[in-house]
This record gives sequence, structure tokens and C-alpha cells, in this order.
Amino acid sequence: MQLGLVGLGKMGANMRTRVQAAGIDVVGYDPRPEVTDVASLSELKDKLSAPRIVWLMVPSGDPTRENVKQLADILEPGDIVIDGGNSRFTDDEPNATLLDAKGIHYLDCGVSGGVWGLQNGYGLMVGGDKEHVATAMPIFDALRPEGPREEGFVHAGPVGAGHYAKMVHNGIEYGLMQSYGEGYEMLTAEPLIEDVTGTIKAWTRGTVVRSWLLDLLVRALEEDPGLTEISDYTPDSGEGRWTVEEAINHAVPLNVISAALFARFASRQEDGSPTLKAVSALRNQFGGHAMKAAEH
Amino acid sequence: MQLGLVGLGKMGANMRTRVQAAGIDVVGYDPRPEVTDVASLSELKDKLSAPRIVWLMVPSGDPTRENVKQLADILEPGDIVIDGGNSRFTDDEPNATLLDAKGIHYLDCGVSGGVWGLQNGYGLMVGGDKEHVATAMPIFDALRPEGPREEGFVHAGPVGAGHYAKMVHNGIEYGLMQSYGEGYEMLTAEPLIEDVTGTIKAWTRGTVVRSWLLDLLVRALEEDPGLTEISDYTPDSGEGRWTVEEAINHAVPLNVISAALFARFASRQEDGSPTLKAVSALRNQFGGHAMKAAEH
Amino acid sequence: MQLGLVGLGKMGANMRTRVQAAGIDVVGYDPRPEVTDVASLSELKDKLSAPRIVWLMVPSGDPTRENVKQLADILEPGDIVIDGGNSRFTDDEPNATLLDAKGIHYLDCGVSGGVWGLQNGYGLMVGGDKEHVATAMPIFDALRPEGPREEGFVHAGPVGAGHYAKMVHNGIEYGLMQSYGEGYEMLTAEPLIEDVTGTIKAWTRGTVVRSWLLDLLVRALEEDPGLTEISDYTPDSGEGRWTVEEAINHAVPLNVISAALFARFASRQEDGSPTLKAVSALRNQFGGHAMKAAEH
Amino acid sequence: MQLGLVGLGKMGANMRTRVQAAGIDVVGYDPRPEVTDVASLSELKDKLSAPRIVWLMVPSGDPTRENVKQLADILEPGDIVIDGGNSRFTDDEPNATLLDAKGIHYLDCGVSGGVWGLQNGYGLMVGGDKEHVATAMPIFDALRPEGPREEGFVHAGPVGAGHYAKMVHNGIEYGLMQSYGEGYEMLTAEPLIEDVTGTIKAWTRGTVVRSWLLDLLVRALEEDPGLTEISDYTPDSGEGRWTVEEAINHAVPLNVISAALFARFASRQEDGSPTLKAVSALRNQFGGHAMKAAEH
Repeated sequence: MQLGLVGLGKMGANMRTRVQAAGIDVVGYDPRPEVTDVASLSELKDKLSAPRIVWLMVPSGDPTRENVKQLADILEPGDIVIDGGNSRFTDDEPNATLLDAKGIHYLDCGVSGGVWGLQNGYGLMVGGDKEHVATAMPIFDALRPEGPREEGFVHAGPVGAGHYAKMVHNGIEYGLMQSYGEGYEMLTAEPLIEDVTGTIKAWTRGTVVRSWLLDLLVRALEEDPGLTEISDYTPDSGEGRWTVEEAINHAVPLNVISAALFARFASRQEDGSPTLKAVSALRNQFGGHAMKAAEH
Repeated sequence: MQLGLVGLGKMGANMRTRVQAAGIDVVGYDPRPEVTDVASLSELKDKLSAPRIVWLMVPSGDPTRENVKQLADILEPGDIVIDGGNSRFTDDEPNATLLDAKGIHYLDCGVSGGVWGLQNGYGLMVGGDKEHVATAMPIFDALRPEGPREEGFVHAGPVGAGHYAKMVHNGIEYGLMQSYGEGYEMLTAEPLIEDVTGTIKAWTRGTVVRSWLLDLLVRALEEDPGLTEISDYTPDSGEGRWTVEEAINHAVPLNVISAALFARFASRQEDGSPTLKAVSALRNQFGGHAMKAAEH
Repeated sequence: MQLGLVGLGKMGANMRTRVQAAGIDVVGYDPRPEVTDVASLSELKDKLSAPRIVWLMVPSGDPTRENVKQLADILEPGDIVIDGGNSRFTDDEPNATLLDAKGIHYLDCGVSGGVWGLQNGYGLMVGGDKEHVATAMPIFDALRPEGPREEGFVHAGPVGAGHYAKMVHNGIEYGLMQSYGEGYEMLTAEPLIEDVTGTIKAWTRGTVVRSWLLDLLVRALEEDPGLTEISDYTPDSGEGRWTVEEAINHAVPLNVISAALFARFASRQEDGSPTLKAVSALRNQFGGHAMKAAEH
Repeated sequence: MQLGLVGLGKMGANMRTRVQAAGIDVVGYDPRPEVTDVASLSELKDKLSAPRIVWLMVPSGDPTRENVKQLADILEPGDIVIDGGNSRFTDDEPNATLLDAKGIHYLDCGVSGGVWGLQNGYGLMVGGDKEHVATAMPIFDALRPEGPREEGFVHAGPVGAGHYAKMVHNGIEYGLMQSYGEGYEMLTAEPLIEDVTGTIKAWTRGTVVRSWLLDLLVRALEEDPGLTEISDYTPDSGEGRWTVEEAINHAVPLNVISAALFARFASRQEDGSPTLKAVSALRNQFGGHAMKAAEH
């Protein structure tokens, strides 16, 4: 079994290691000469026997679309392209159509697990046709965690279903992290709690709230009790936004996940919230309440 | 007609002026010698003919409770005490019971209008017995705005109803201000909008969102376009909190008013949000995402 | 002065009346023969002297785009098309470009006021070039409320600014209505409040929360105290959704307006909330808490 | 080692079994003759050697307070009372004070794990004095899960800290469940997702969102795919409310946990939301939008 792997960044490199460990021959391509196995996508194609499986692990949006376009020109009918990046699910149908015109098949695969996937395996959510999923199953089996296949892999539906599932997974992730964060803040706010880290650590077995994220929170707190070394500035990487946008499309009330997203936006307003400046100005207007001066 | 007025701060002093303008004789008491008419509550009582009406306009909580206690000792059966401060409605029943033991009557009166009440009149929400409301009506008529009585005054129910109504009024106020604030922020965020103040000013006639608060927002923006002189630090004065607490007691889903309250809390977290620090630490743990260092 | 008016529905018909009352000659077109003045857009064009002003007041999306396309073929260089409908502001740039290729000018105009605009005038927010705004000013002056122009009209910026401003206006409207709604619910939940309608009516003068929407809430409650005749099912018409989507684009934390939108979504879930079904199922799983059976 | 256990309901009975399995002699008291070991609290006391440890596992509020009062009269100086119920942490200080007057010691212990605690062990969060915690440690060790003590047990601080920690734990639980619920709803809303249960099951290994609650959600969906047999009606048992109330006391912005609580409130509004009825009535007033009639 062979796999062509395009994109050897942090995630891609780890995935190569895990797939190789399962006895699969991986040919990797990356524009950076120091990490790539081949000099071009054409060379990648030449090193693989038909029918080829080429896995994309590059940034979503233009970079992924650009690679799909090139592969449509290079690959042969019967080959399979799998987009394993964090693409928006609405990109999948156009990608599939483009490739299908050349007789090339397409699968989209949401991948979860972060830097831990190398050792724990990756949770996989796949969209596409049943027969192509079957063809690529050895790759999926190599990447997914040990244990029953259905606990770390799903063929969720047709093209797009994999990335949609991954998008929702990440939306949930936003909500879970914000929930733990609010709980952490509640503990730090109350003087009775003399051992915040210890309290959270005591939740890691037996309780209703135990989870892998909770284990990670304990790790973080043991490394930096009080989280004094970091700012609250928190980026977001797209999937939370897409989840809220899809909620709007489907008229789903998404109060918790959207609040988690908005909290990240607020964390990045370094000149303060224009909304609250307006509120403060209004309080001054009707009540004569003092406003706090801006620090310039 | 006479009125005893206890508390001659910003609100109390304005109310005295308005009541006097209606031809009512006001005897004011305040601990500050430079503004008081009398030296003590006893002297206040002596200057008024029975049945007396004494209006409390002092800070809520202990100061109001303390004055009620003293008035219970000083006043005579048949007198009326009106608490016009921003007391929590749960304070009204104990106050009424204390006074009732001496045959003294009690009304609670929520007062809205801020520093503009002197010229515009005050919106009044009253709780208590019908006959005592009738006795005090000339005072209420002096304070309320011009126009039909029912558009600026209500006898909302028994003791406590007035302050409950005022609490809800202020909860709504939080939601309205936050709504306008969010709209203001949306305008400032979009480069197409070249005239933010002008856009908001154009909403003051004819539109669905026109209101007195909107007029005040225009005033604030005309004084300080861009609100560059003020920080977003926004205090809260209790009634928003009580509204959310009562929503919990009544199992009312209060998403908007609570979000407005929480936004004020967040505006005051000058070392950043502990919640988001935890979220940022979690992202780093599972994804290797960089964290922003705290500024010490 | 002449105006071509395309779309004579509820809003369009009222606007025709108001513009005519200002002494402007209106030629109206509508596909319904019983209300139209002319048989076609071509005939509309022929009845107007150059440079023509044609105001579109048709449903947003395809109907508006279709009319713009036809007008691009029919009108002459120097004519002006004004889209007064509730179009998404992202439609404006393509519309303007299409018309500009024929030398036809374009303005977008957000219009607020609802069925009351006929008598009160409409709040207007306009995007486009200064000189075309100046040409159309007599129309805007006819439509806007009495009083200073800047209190009911704004030239907010280039093409798109008018509809963006109207979108934000409607987003605020969502937040305001939800705030009043939550306050109304808090009053109905508390037995102390014996006169809910009266309490809200008493807020219409002198208080901080007074507004036109509050006046309308009093009207509604006087017509149907307790709102017993209506369900809570509440549609949304697009602009609330767009506001949240733009907030995501601009990374603006929009907690209140989004909560107001989500509350409408929830009001329409007639089989109940799938989210809460999952929560209820989870409680049963870990705590053995009884679940309520579905009613089939 | 001996333990007096008051309250042999679902939780208490399971805990007795687990403590007995660790070789500790349990004397149980319950008002129901068919399950109790002794006829009264006095007899319970007589069966235990000093210094006694008596664990309360009765409903919070009055029942717990009443038992503490009786134990204060019955027990002897040096005995220890542990409240393991879901009491509000503000009850702990009064309970401790009452017992302390008789020389009896007090610990509060939050217990998590639900019906699964019997086999998995219970997560324990304890408040009180160090020496009394040490005395009771064999009991805590019997109840907590296998594994390192600090992963299922914490001495969080002085009296009250245990119940505060448990309250926050439950607040987090609300947020987590709502997050999973919203994700579940997003999957059901999208036709691309042909296998909702399978998708969620595929998240149980390797992914960032894996947790014990997620495992339970899979169990629930395997028992009732589509959750068609249950309504969305979801009770709340106090600790979510207390968490929001404490957030208000501490000025912590608790957007996510409060939204989860409010969603439960909304799920129980069987006549619909008064808030949305007001919104719908307002839309009708200004826009002439039709309202949906109530079903009587």
C-alpha cells in the first residue's frame, strides 16, 4: 500500500510517521526542499502506482483549492484525492466536481487530535462514495486510534459530510473549552478555594465532567499555576465562525457555541470594547455617572 | 401640602426643586449641614403637620434601612413613609412591617429619569395600599412628567411592586443600551460607513429604533466622536444583578439582559479574562498553538 | 420633479402616496395590472424625462437583481436607480457595477418606518456618490420625516453604506424588542405586579427606557392584555441573520443581537429543541433522572 | 473503621455498598423502616464508637439542616459530621457553627458520579479542617475512584469549599451538556450527515472532544436514535442557578453556563415564551407582520 501526502507541516509530518508505522509506503511532497521526498506533484504522481491515493494536508482555502486544481491536471482517472485539512465543507462539492470531470475521485476527511494524534491516533470523519472510502480504508485504519473502528472513524455521508462533521466537532470544542474556562474562573474568584489546580485535578476521575480536555487543563495548570505567564488573547481559526454561520443557515439556536466564539473576539479588543464605550457614554448622559478616561 | 424629604443628593435636590415648583412646601433633611433645612429627623417631623409624608431618597441597603428604623421611632400613627431610592424590592416588606407595627404606612416608589427628571419629570412606579397612594398623589403628580398621569405613573401593586417594576425597568435599560452599543460597534467596524455619528443621528426620527436613549447617544457622539476620550470600563449599580437573580427565581430565560450585565463585568477585568486564559492554555496543550505572553 | 417607482406593495404604495403629497409626479409599475400605472418597465421609462430616477421597492434577492438587470437594458446614461428595498448590502456593489457599465448611476437606500412611514415619514440611510444623492434629494426630502434633515436622513458613505446601515438598524431592533420582551416576561412572572400593562404604560414618559417601540408595546397590550391571542412563533426576515454574519466577518462580539435572533429560531421549533433532548438524555444516563416522554 | 450513614436513597444506598466493600462497617439510618439499620439517630449514635463519623446523604436545604440540628443534640464532642449532599455552600458555615458549639466537627463534601459511582467511584471535593479530613480519609478513600488519590479527591479549602467546588463542577456540567446538545442539533439539521449517531460515536477516541459525557451520549443515541421517545423538557436541580448567582456575586461573566441554564428554563415554557409573544406583537404593530394565533 502506498500514500501520496501533500503538506508536511506539523500535522502532516506526524501523520506520515503514523502511516509509515503501519507499514504503508508514504511519498511526501512539500514546497520546502529540506522536508520533501519529491521535487514536484508530478514526481509524486510518478512514484505512486495506480490507483493512487493522494492526501492533502495543507492550509484550507486557496492553498487547498490550488492543490486540487493541480492534481486534477496531473492525476489519472481512478485515482483518489483526500482533503484532510480543515477546509470549509462548502469547498468540497466544487473540489469533487473539478476532479470528477477528469474521472478522479474525492473524499473529504475531518481530522481531530492535534499534536497528540501521532501517539493516540486521529479521530476521522469522512465524506464521499462508499467504494472510495473502502479503497482508502487501510490509510484510515493506520491513522485512527486503536480500538473498534467505529469509535474513531465514521463514514458520515456524501462529499462534504466529513468536513461538516469536523466543523461541528470544533464548534463543540469551543463550547467545552469555554465551559471549563468559566468554571476555572469561578474557582479563582472564591477565596474559599485554596487549591484551584487540585480541585480541577480531582475532577479527572469519577466525576461527570471528566474528559481529555480536562486532563489537558490540569497539565496546563501544573505547568503554570494561576496561568500568570499568558495573556487572555485567544485566536480563532475559522471553524467556530463557520459553525455559527451554518447555525444561522439552519435556524439552529446556538447560544453556547456562539458565546464561546464571541468571547474570543472580545479577548482581542485591545483598545477595549466600542460597545461598552457607548454604554458608558449613555450612562453618563442620563445619570451623570462618571466615565473612566481612556488611557492614551 | 407638605413633604418631608430625606436625602438631598443629586437626585434628592432636583426632586425638591420640582416638588416646590408645584407649590408644595418641602422640608429637607440631609446630614450635610450646608444643604439641610433641619438639624435632625426629629426636627423634620416637628416641622410637618400630621398626617406626614416623608420621602426617603438615600442610598439603598443599610442607609435606607437605618432611616426607616429611625422614622419608625419618630413618626406618628397615620404618617406615610415613601422609599423613593433604588432599593431591592425584597427590602420593602421588612420596612413596611417595621413601620406598620407603629401604625405608620409605607409606599415604595421606583423613580426613573436621572438628571433629566428635574425638567422632564420622573417616571414613577408605586407599590402599597390604595388609600395611601391616594393621599400621596399630589406629590406623585408634582414629580411625574406633564401629560396623562398613566403615562408617567403607575400604582403597580402592593408593597414591593414599585421597586420590582423599577428593577425590571433598569434590566430593560441594560438590554437597550447594549443593543445600541453593539449597533454602534458594527458601524465603526465597517469602512463603508463614513459617517457613524450621522448614521445614528438619522435614526432619531421616523425609524423603528428611535428612542430617548438614542437621542442621548447622538449627544454623546457629537461631544466626543469616536468616543476616544473614554475607556470601556462600565460599572453596574445593582439592579441589573437583581433582575438576573429574580429571573433565576422565576425560571425566566433572560439571555439578553444577562449578556448585557456580563459585558459590563468583562469590561472591568483589567488583567484579562481568566476564562480565556484557560481557553488559550488548552489550545496550546492540544494543538501546540502559540499563547500570547502576559504583560507584567 | 418625477419619480419612477417599481413595486407597489404595502410599502411601495404608501411611499407613492407620501411622495405625491410632496408635489412629485410618480409613475408606478407593478406586475399586478390592478395597481400599476404602466404596462412595463419600458413604458415607465418613456413616461419619465431624463435624467430619470427609478426607485426599486421589491423583495430583496432575485427579484431586485432581476429588476436591476432589466433597468440596465432599458434606462439611459445619466439615469439613477435607487434600491430602497431590504437588500443585503453585498448586493449593492454588483448592482452598481452592472448599471455603471451602461452609464447609469446607483444609490442604495435603507428605509425604516414600517406601516407608520406614510404618516410619520421614513428614516433613510443612503449609500452612493455625492452628486447622485444631491440629484435625488427632493425624493428623499419627500419621504423623510418632518424636522431637520439630518435627524431622518444620512448619506452614510459609498454604494453599500445605506443597506449596511439599515442592516445594523434592524439588528439593533432585534435587541431592543428582545429587551422589552424579557422585561415584559419578568413583570408577568411576579405576582406583586397586579397591572402589567399599566406598568409598561407608565414607562412611556420621563423614564430612561421610553421609545417608540415601547409605545407600540402599550398599544399591543391594550388590544390584547396578556397577549393571550397570539403564539410566540416569531419569523425573522434576514437582516438579523446578516448582522450576525457581518459581526463574524468583523470579529465583533454580538452577544445580545445574536441571542435575540436565536430566540426567534427557538420559538419556531415546534417539535422541541433537539439540543435539550440531548441534554435530557444525558441527565438520564448519568443521574438516572427521569425523562419526559415525547407527545406523539 | 465505622461509618454512620444518614439517608439511604439511590445515592446513599450505593455509597453504603461501596464503603462496605472497602471493609468499613456501615450503620445506616433512613426514615423508611424497610431500608434502615437502626430506628433513630440516637440508636445510630449508640452503635458507633467515638470518635464517630456520620455522613449525611439527604436532600439539601431543610432536610439537611434539620438533620444537622438533631445531630448537634445527639452526638458528642470530637465526633465528625460530613454533609455529602448537594447543599448550597452557603449552608455550610451555619451548619459548622451550630455543631462547633457542641464541640462537634464538620466537613462538607461534594460528590460527583451519579448512578455510576457505585462501580467507578465518586469524585470528592472536601471542605473543612485538615485534621478532620485526615480522620475521615479512609471513608474518602473507599468512596473515590481507583488510581492516584489526587485524581478523584481534593481537600479544596475550609468549610464550604467542598460544596462550592461541587457547585462549579455542576455549572461546568451544564455548559458541557449544552455544547454537546448544540453539536448534536447541528448534525441533525444537515442532510449531508447520514449517520448522526455514528458521527458522534466516532468522536469517542482520539478527538479533542472525547469525554465520559460523550460516551453517555452515544449510549443514549444507540438506545433511541433520533431521541424520538423523549421531550425536550429539562429540569434543573439548583446548582446551575447557584453558579450563576455566585457569578453575579463575584462579577464573573458567565455567558455559557448561564445560557445553558436559560435553555432549560425555556424548555419548560409549555405555553410558549412570553418574551417572544411580545416580540411578535411588536412586529405586528410596526410592520403589519402577521402574528400566529395561539392554540387554545
